[in-house]
Amino acid sequence: MNQGDFPSLEKVLNETEEELWTRDEFTEQLKAVGSSFYHDKHPFHVAMHKGKLSREQIRGWVANRYYYQISVPIKDAAILSRLPSRDMRREWIGRIIDHDGTQGEEGGIEAWLRLGEAVGLSREEVTQEVRVVPGVRFAVDAYVNFARTKPWIEAVASSLTELFSPDLMSKRIKILERLYPWIDRAGLEYFQNRLSQAPRDADTALRLVLTYCQTPNDQRRAVAALRFKCDVLWAQLDAIENAYPLYE
Amino acid sequence: MNQGDFPSLEKVLNETEEELWTRDEFTEQLKAVGSSFYHDKHPFHVAMHKGKLSREQIRGWVANRYYYQISVPIKDAAILSRLPSRDMRREWIGRIIDHDGTQGEEGGIEAWLRLGEAVGLSREEVTQEVRVVPGVRFAVDAYVNFARTKPWIEAVASSLTELFSPDLMSKRIKILERLYPWIDRAGLEYFQNRLSQAPRDADTALRLVLTYCQTPNDQRRAVAALRFKCDVLWAQLDAIENAYPLYE
Repeated sequence: MNQGDFPSLEKVLNETEEELWTRDEFTEQLKAVGSSFYHDKHPFHVAMHKGKLSREQIRGWVANRYYYQISVPIKDAAILSRLPSRDMRREWIGRIIDHDGTQGEEGGIEAWLRLGEAVGLSREEVTQEVRVVPGVRFAVDAYVNFARTKPWIEAVASSLTELFSPDLMSKRIKILERLYPWIDRAGLEYFQNRLSQAPRDADTALRLVLTYCQTPNDQRRAVAALRFKCDVLWAQLDAIENAYPLYE
Repeated sequence: MNQGDFPSLEKVLNETEEELWTRDEFTEQLKAVGSSFYHDKHPFHVAMHKGKLSREQIRGWVANRYYYQISVPIKDAAILSRLPSRDMRREWIGRIIDHDGTQGEEGGIEAWLRLGEAVGLSREEVTQEVRVVPGVRFAVDAYVNFARTKPWIEAVASSLTELFSPDLMSKRIKILERLYPWIDRAGLEYFQNRLSQAPRDADTALRLVLTYCQTPNDQRRAVAALRFKCDVLWAQLDAIENAYPLYE
């Protein structure tokens, strides 16, 4: 009934005696979630990377994904408010600053608005969220609620899609430059910045998950949290594809 | 950022001086939401009522919709916990009993499980939620969170899709009997029961909304809440259609 629960898996967890994974096995299990469920395999994403999206579809993706971008620092603030130690919070707070920015260093949300301008969307059109479809809103809100309500280590584990994002980002930059030459290249700064931010963030989160998941159940819940996050990203693309269909 | 906010509408509300609607005008505005956005117009629903769905699609719809069915009494309990008077709670509590049932009067969730059996799904397959797709989960959870976090009168207003459901239910019973003769008719009891329950519930909710929305802003927020609920129903069908496509 809660966001991100996978009842059939939960039932399994409660009914069987599972083995504790080694650090390496646990890391492999987490990475296997990405191999199967990360949104790079979604048809809309595949079409994007084949250069098949129209300007209108690219705009729809950027405008909808903005709702995710503005929700990420809120999600991270929810996690921050629940991290039990000062050291952890010192590491986590940088994520919020990366997105919200500071005076003079405008951050990821501003960079996303510039991406919007680069694809032909006015700032107002994006910030007023006029193109954001309900399915995107529901998926993103589920992610924020997960961070607010689940144990902090599960919320941390759900952020581990960043293990898979640098690969995708570096491909995406090249593809947008090559296959969508009408997009102003200055708009791609967001993705450039993520190339260094995401691996650092993923390292921190992975270290926390490997350290604090100390029982077989903890480990399985971390894997389930990461699967949940993959579903959040996938469902966003489903909803975007519904609004901007691939084949008309 | 919250579920069910429509920022562009909200901005309008905060920036303009709106007139208070009369009771009749307000009722018309609420009904107009249904005419435009109720899920009877969704392609998956239209296909169902034309007899075009396969057995597998009907099963997918019943299995996914189960997640909505079991969330309705939770949503109503959240509203119940926030209703300010004993009289209101006395009226509202019947909704929960309608779904959860009592000893000897098994209620709507049990009736839905029987519908599942009538279309060829085992009880276990339905209750373990193995077919429930993330998009359905996110949409339904957004509805529960709306009831938990929004002012109670908005949560009540969001239930007003029941104004539109009796019409749909009575059509649906005839259509399922005529166009899907393979469905055991005993499974249709859920819809029969809703024919009398929904109008009674809608009357109560409409009376509360008309009485307690006393400012132009209250009225607009009630309309927005009902639109949000239509989006919740619509997004469920989007997600079901993605999992069980209409044209393959």
